[in-house]
Amino acid sequence: MKTDGNIPYKIYLEESELPKQWYNVRADMKNKPAPLLNPATLKPMTAEDLKPVFCDELIRQELDDTTAYFDIPDDIRNFYKMYRPAPLVRAYCLEEKLDTPAKIYYKFEGNNTSGSHKLNSAIAQAYYAKMQGLKGVTTETGAGQWGTALSMACAYFGLDCKVYMVKVSYEQKPFRREVMRTYGASVTPSPSETTEVGRKILAEHPGTTGSLGCAISEAVETAVKTDGYRYVLGSVLSQVLLHQSVIGLETKAALDKYGIKPDIIIGCAGGGSNLGGLISPFMGEKLRGEADYRFIAVEPASCPSLTRGRYAYDFCDTGMVCPLAKMYTLGSNFIPSANHAGGLRYHGMSSVLSQLYDDGLMEAVSVGQTSVFEAAEEFARVEGILPAPESSHAIRVAIDEAMKCKETGEEKTIVFGLTGTGYFDMVAYEKFHDGKMVDYIPTDEELEASFARLPKVE
Amino acid sequence: MKTDGNIPYKIYLEESELPKQWYNVRADMKNKPAPLLNPATLKPMTAEDLKPVFCDELIRQELDDTTAYFDIPDDIRNFYKMYRPAPLVRAYCLEEKLDTPAKIYYKFEGNNTSGSHKLNSAIAQAYYAKMQGLKGVTTETGAGQWGTALSMACAYFGLDCKVYMVKVSYEQKPFRREVMRTYGASVTPSPSETTEVGRKILAEHPGTTGSLGCAISEAVETAVKTDGYRYVLGSVLSQVLLHQSVIGLETKAALDKYGIKPDIIIGCAGGGSNLGGLISPFMGEKLRGEADYRFIAVEPASCPSLTRGRYAYDFCDTGMVCPLAKMYTLGSNFIPSANHAGGLRYHGMSSVLSQLYDDGLMEAVSVGQTSVFEAAEEFARVEGILPAPESSHAIRVAIDEAMKCKETGEEKTIVFGLTGTGYFDMVAYEKFHDGKMVDYIPTDEELEASFARLPKVE
Repeated sequence: MKTDGNIPYKIYLEESELPKQWYNVRADMKNKPAPLLNPATLKPMTAEDLKPVFCDELIRQELDDTTAYFDIPDDIRNFYKMYRPAPLVRAYCLEEKLDTPAKIYYKFEGNNTSGSHKLNSAIAQAYYAKMQGLKGVTTETGAGQWGTALSMACAYFGLDCKVYMVKVSYEQKPFRREVMRTYGASVTPSPSETTEVGRKILAEHPGTTGSLGCAISEAVETAVKTDGYRYVLGSVLSQVLLHQSVIGLETKAALDKYGIKPDIIIGCAGGGSNLGGLISPFMGEKLRGEADYRFIAVEPASCPSLTRGRYAYDFCDTGMVCPLAKMYTLGSNFIPSANHAGGLRYHGMSSVLSQLYDDGLMEAVSVGQTSVFEAAEEFARVEGILPAPESSHAIRVAIDEAMKCKETGEEKTIVFGLTGTGYFDMVAYEKFHDGKMVDYIPTDEELEASFARLPKVE
Repeated sequence: MKTDGNIPYKIYLEESELPKQWYNVRADMKNKPAPLLNPATLKPMTAEDLKPVFCDELIRQELDDTTAYFDIPDDIRNFYKMYRPAPLVRAYCLEEKLDTPAKIYYKFEGNNTSGSHKLNSAIAQAYYAKMQGLKGVTTETGAGQWGTALSMACAYFGLDCKVYMVKVSYEQKPFRREVMRTYGASVTPSPSETTEVGRKILAEHPGTTGSLGCAISEAVETAVKTDGYRYVLGSVLSQVLLHQSVIGLETKAALDKYGIKPDIIIGCAGGGSNLGGLISPFMGEKLRGEADYRFIAVEPASCPSLTRGRYAYDFCDTGMVCPLAKMYTLGSNFIPSANHAGGLRYHGMSSVLSQLYDDGLMEAVSVGQTSVFEAAEEFARVEGILPAPESSHAIRVAIDEAMKCKETGEEKTIVFGLTGTGYFDMVAYEKFHDGKMVDYIPTDEELEASFARLPKVE
């Protein structure tokens, strides 16, 4: 393994270099993200509207698009110290394997039990719930990454955690369920008999294996109807991007330490939590005219909200009980085919990222699943880490960009977000190894049919 | 979370502080471990005897009980940099939860895809195989931790890796199998039709689900009969303890950096790879009369080789094809009940540790499985990391010792080895959560029956 001057394989920051504030990229955006709308009145949601569902401080963060920095409370920073600062790794072995002049770095967020960056926001949301004197929180989870992170955060603060887990995952992916139980969460397969909406769905569709939309509805209903509970969410919301800015702030601090300026910054994009967090401080520089970077959002070809979606107001959930958000969307009725990147199956994209993309400040590409697993395996064999399918979307495009450098001879510096590990995704790897993986791309007709059902707003 | 002066939550060493040499504790032992014996002649195994099975350099390391330090080749140190130096963590949250005056540290070896410390020796063994110009290596694996580590190491050096995996694990634990395949290993369920011994066993016991003993025999046979292959092993052997000394050397360097002197050092003990590696440099000081420490080996009550075994020559494998080793053993015929700490089911203990224990330089305790999972869950909820069942044996005793300090008011410093993560052990956690975990302790009669079948040597 050749190394590059004084740049170590892993750049670790000291604990004292852990960011003390989160950065709110909206403060530097000229075109602010469009506000959430009340679905009943089509007027911007007020703090009062949101109060029954979300924690007070989180509402404040959600609605604030002018304050650039928010202090990270000490209790959250102390928890961060259990797994942060996260390493920025120079992919020396991958560079050597690709024989590219590009310099590749990745910010690795998988070194914690939740296996992903989700913990960065989970601990913040649990903290504010605790500070508000709540008894607990509710949420939904599909594959279980967010539910795991929230369970860990609630265990730390002694909060109750009720997770509605899509029934098919609950039954077929029992391992993440057991991780959540280890951290003391109660995990209910959704739809369930515990809520009105669950009972209604079970009556209408006996034997259904559930959906994320239904699980959201059950979690929201339980939060609203149970004294001392609120609902929390792991992506899409602007508050989540705020918390996840810790990823980008650390990345920037580590790069600055060695005088490295990236040319391209790449992240996978589902609801936008990781990508938004990673690029925020760099995007801030770009918005303020202090520096320029290429930003690339990578999404699965099977669920291409940025590359093929509409920029329009839509429901955040398939149950249509949540506020309307203006975002690149495939329509809240769009059901992506079974693909293995469970975290990238959301029909829409964070309002912040949608606006940045619409303003031409960020690029987006979509990639097929098989090529993503090819990149994952190539990466694993040289860099050691077994990447999550979601993260591997970013690896795919990082490799593609590095290979372009090989053709042109350019020594570009590429940074990508390695959001997590794939330990609970081995069924997908097995399909890949056995040649049974299917690449699915929605047809234009399918998308048009979904767009036709978008709510009429404006 | 209260913190202690200038001691951070995690003590990371710099890459430049990564050990440059492994330490061979045998060099400082007055009573050397007894030599391996040739089962045919009952004479000490020579390098020539071992040559068809093991790599040349590894034989040299295995037989050398006088050289204190071995240089770590640069290629191995470069690989180590992908996941080392491993953090030494101050368990501030656990201390607070226990309300103990004890100061607890753990050396965390789980931050790599193999999920354990096994990679430290796998990469060394793969390196020497590569340097010898071999095509590949063979090994056996039960639950799959060692097989995973070896697959990663072989992928890095472009070596072929043939893993014989106990059939019941191959079928019931497909996820580790898929991790191995991701790294390019061929994984064969054992017993198989690919070897003479496999065919013989299949003919005699149609439908058998296999055993570790059978898998070892198949791996050894394949290595001996295939041109350019050797057999490698992940524990028990002295060469493995040598490589694993990197754990203890880093631990000592991190403690020294902050002027911390531990009172008690605790590790789980199966074949001895982790415990031997962790304690080696500290034991060296004790052997040389430079310092004193309490060392505690923790084993499962279901497989208590140190606490209830005999110190005698025995076969290293249940197939009785390997050399005889003098060790604390339950007898190579002893089949431990199904317990969930797959890595702690070996019938014997490393000759090095056996001798140290016999000389009164180390203590040993055995603990029941349910109490181990209680400790695991308590630890996970405050420290975040989801520990492997094996590692949780050490957690159990670290907590017990910390609680003794609470009674006496002593501010002892406790260091334990957290060998790995439990992501692939959720079936065991599920049993624990559902109250279906069974504690099994072999009866004296069972052990006596097994001892009666020990080989007659001397």
